[in-house]
Parts: sequence; C-alpha cells; structure tokens
Amino acid sequence: MRIDVLTLFPGLFPGPLGESVIGRALERGLLELEAVDLRDYAVDARGTVDDKPYGGGPGMLMMADPVVRAVEAVRRPGSMVVLTSPRGEVFSQRLARELAGCGHLVLITGHYEGVDQRAIDLAVDREISLGDFVLSCGVLPAMAVIDAVARLLPGVLGDDASSEEESHSAGLLEYPQYTRPPEYRGRRVPEVLLSGDHGRIAVFRQREMERLTRERRPELWEKFLMQTKRSLTK
Amino acid sequence: MRIDVLTLFPGLFPGPLGESVIGRALERGLLELEAVDLRDYAVDARGTVDDKPYGGGPGMLMMADPVVRAVEAVRRPGSMVVLTSPRGEVFSQRLARELAGCGHLVLITGHYEGVDQRAIDLAVDREISLGDFVLSCGVLPAMAVIDAVARLLPGVLGDDASSEEESHSAGLLEYPQYTRPPEYRGRRVPEVLLSGDHGRIAVFRQREMERLTRERRPELWEKFLMQTKRSLTK
Repeated sequence: MRIDVLTLFPGLFPGPLGESVIGRALERGLLELEAVDLRDYAVDARGTVDDKPYGGGPGMLMMADPVVRAVEAVRRPGSMVVLTSPRGEVFSQRLARELAGCGHLVLITGHYEGVDQRAIDLAVDREISLGDFVLSCGVLPAMAVIDAVARLLPGVLGDDASSEEESHSAGLLEYPQYTRPPEYRGRRVPEVLLSGDHGRIAVFRQREMERLTRERRPELWEKFLMQTKRSLTK
Repeated sequence: MRIDVLTLFPGLFPGPLGESVIGRALERGLLELEAVDLRDYAVDARGTVDDKPYGGGPGMLMMADPVVRAVEAVRRPGSMVVLTSPRGEVFSQRLARELAGCGHLVLITGHYEGVDQRAIDLAVDREISLGDFVLSCGVLPAMAVIDAVARLLPGVLGDDASSEEESHSAGLLEYPQYTRPPEYRGRRVPEVLLSGDHGRIAVFRQREMERLTRERRPELWEKFLMQTKRSLTK
C-alpha cells in the first residue's frame, strides 16, 4: 500500500512510525510512505499557504489552492483522499479496516484553525477525527491513522496476529494479562492462568473481557449483546 | 505543569510535540516534558522489560516491576499516573481539561501486547484509550494526550483562544470556514461572510454548527439538545 501525507511538517514523518512493526513494514516495502510538503504548492514565492478567515475569528486557515493542487499532483484513479479534521467521522477499527483496503491513501493533515471549506468540497473524499478532543494540528491524528491501517496490511503483523485486533473485532475490551514472576509484591497471578488447562483459560479470559466491557464501556457492551442476539436468531 | 513520560522510546519525545504551540510552550517553560526510559528500570543487566503472558497468547507483555519502580521514582504527592491502554476510558476534551488541572502528570506508554495487570493495580490511577482502534504502541496516544492537555494550560494559546476549543466546549462541531480568494474554481465564499454584519455572521455560524452536528454526529446533537433543555428549565 502507498500513503502520501500532505502536510506542513514533512520532516516529522515517519517519526514515531519508524519504530516497531510499522518501521519494519516500511523497511520491508509492505508500506510506502511519502510526506509531501504543502508549501511546495504555496500561492506565492514567499510560501504563503494560509490566510485570515472571512467573517472574522481567531487564527489562520489553510488556503484552498495549495491543498487542491497538492491532491491533484498525487491522486490517481482509486485513491482515497482523507483529511484529519475535528468535524470528521470518528476513527474506529472498522474504518481502519476499510482504509486498509484502498490501494492508495492520501492523508491531508489539518493545520491552523482548519482548511478552506472549498478545498474539502473539491478534493477530499472523507474527513476523519481521532476523537472528541482538540489537538494542535493533524500530524498526530494522521500518524495514528497510518499506524492503525498499516497493522492490518498483509504480512505486517506476521502470523503472530495481535489479540487486541481480535478482541476489537469481537467488540470487547481485552482481558487482563500477567507475566513473570508468579508473585509480585504480594499479588499472585490468577491460578487458572498457571493451570495449563487451555479450556479453563479460554473461559476465564472470555468472562474477563465481558466483565471489563460491561463495567467500563456499557455502550460497547450493549452493542455486543445486540450483535450476539442477532447472530443467534439467524 | 510537568509531564513525565515513561516509555521504551524516550528518543521519540518531544518529536511532533516540538512543533507549533506545544513546542513554544516547552521553550517558554509553560510545560516541562521529560521522557524516562523504562529500560533504566529493567529486571536484569540485559535490559529485560518484557516476558511471555501466562496462559499463552501472542506477543510479549511489559513486566510489572520496571513500570512500578519507574512510577515510584518520579511520583510525588498529587501526581496523576495515567496508562495509555485500549481498555481505558475514551479520551475526550472533558478529560483533557481534568488532566490539565493536575500539577504533575505521569504518562506510561503501553507497549507490546500490554502491561502486567499487577503494575496497573499497584501504580496506575487511570487508564486512557484514544479510541476504538488498535495502535502499535502507546507513544502516539501519549503524544495526543500531552498535546490536548498542554493547549489548555494558562498562557499556551495566548489571548487568541481557539475557536475549536470553544465549539468543543459547547458540544458542537465547528462551522465551515473560508479564506481568500472570494471565488475559487467557480465556488464563492457564502455572501454573509463578506457582509461585515457581525450579527448575521454569528447566526450563520451557529446554524452551520448545529446543522453539521445534527447531520454528522447525531449522538452529540442529542446530548447538546438535552443540555440546552436542562439549562433553559433551570
């Protein structure tokens, strides 16, 4: 898969993405990541890409033209163009799976107070928000999207498929985990995990996933119950 | 405010946080950010910090001891210790405001398949998730939390308070914005924004915020209506 990131801070990429599994995916060519400097598409020789909002208000806006021309320069048939924006659809594992199915992703990182709406209307397929919180710019959301999407590409995680991805697919929070030593500061690992009895371990973990989801994320739990009911009555 | 990040990748900080308003806050000393290497608290001279999960399963877990001892080394009275974890409370602007009120934040970035549950029980006040998607490690969530929290510290944004923070506080998505030129590729800026009539502009923007929230995030819209109703009947 290829991802082009259109940004005012191309030097920040790959940054944290250069580590761990995503870094290895880049090295192995499973993911091609290119950061394009939006200033290369500035409206004048001084590199202007932003201006004051019409109608007043704080801060500066990204102008339409640099964004639209940068998209035109990298877009090809079948590309999906995504803008990170607090107005967007909330990012989720379902959405990550959808984006992982695109051959070419163009990610525009929002900056300043936002982007001229006409650039969005003309050049953006989809707006994605990381969640209901305000960040200084779209670089971190873009990195999170790239990370979540890249993990799902064939070969990136290898055979050692992540249990988190599995529990997310089931719509439940992950069970608690323990490693050595068996006793730490007076706290023992639950006996069942030391038993070697795989059936009991599986039941314990499933119950813990259900308990945690019910206690911590009642809205996820409701959704899980609905889906389970639906699949039982099919 | 001081933030200590306990991580296996201290070299990634401040990274993207060194740019824009957060970078300036660090320079001006409004925010003190220290990345602590969890390997300094390894259980042996070879730097071991992870081990296989009891009961089987893919991947490796962070051991309890390095995490607990690292927290003990930086913690002081009144510190808030947060672990980034897919099992945590979903991060939100409300939560960012709450954390911005702590004098000292200790952020542990999750790694591998998770952290031994006993470290969480012994040393963590709060687990925070960025959202319902799976990332390779907790570095990006930690950076997002730091960004959202730092923006709220006194003096960081200056007088030019962000309109996004304002619209988030009201529980609505932000209105669309436009900048020069008045016409771009046949698309004109809405006439009202060029009118200079601040009353009409305010009404236009409020309506757009309500329309976008209703169309894109019906659950936020319901919440907004409930709150408006409550404040009217008070």
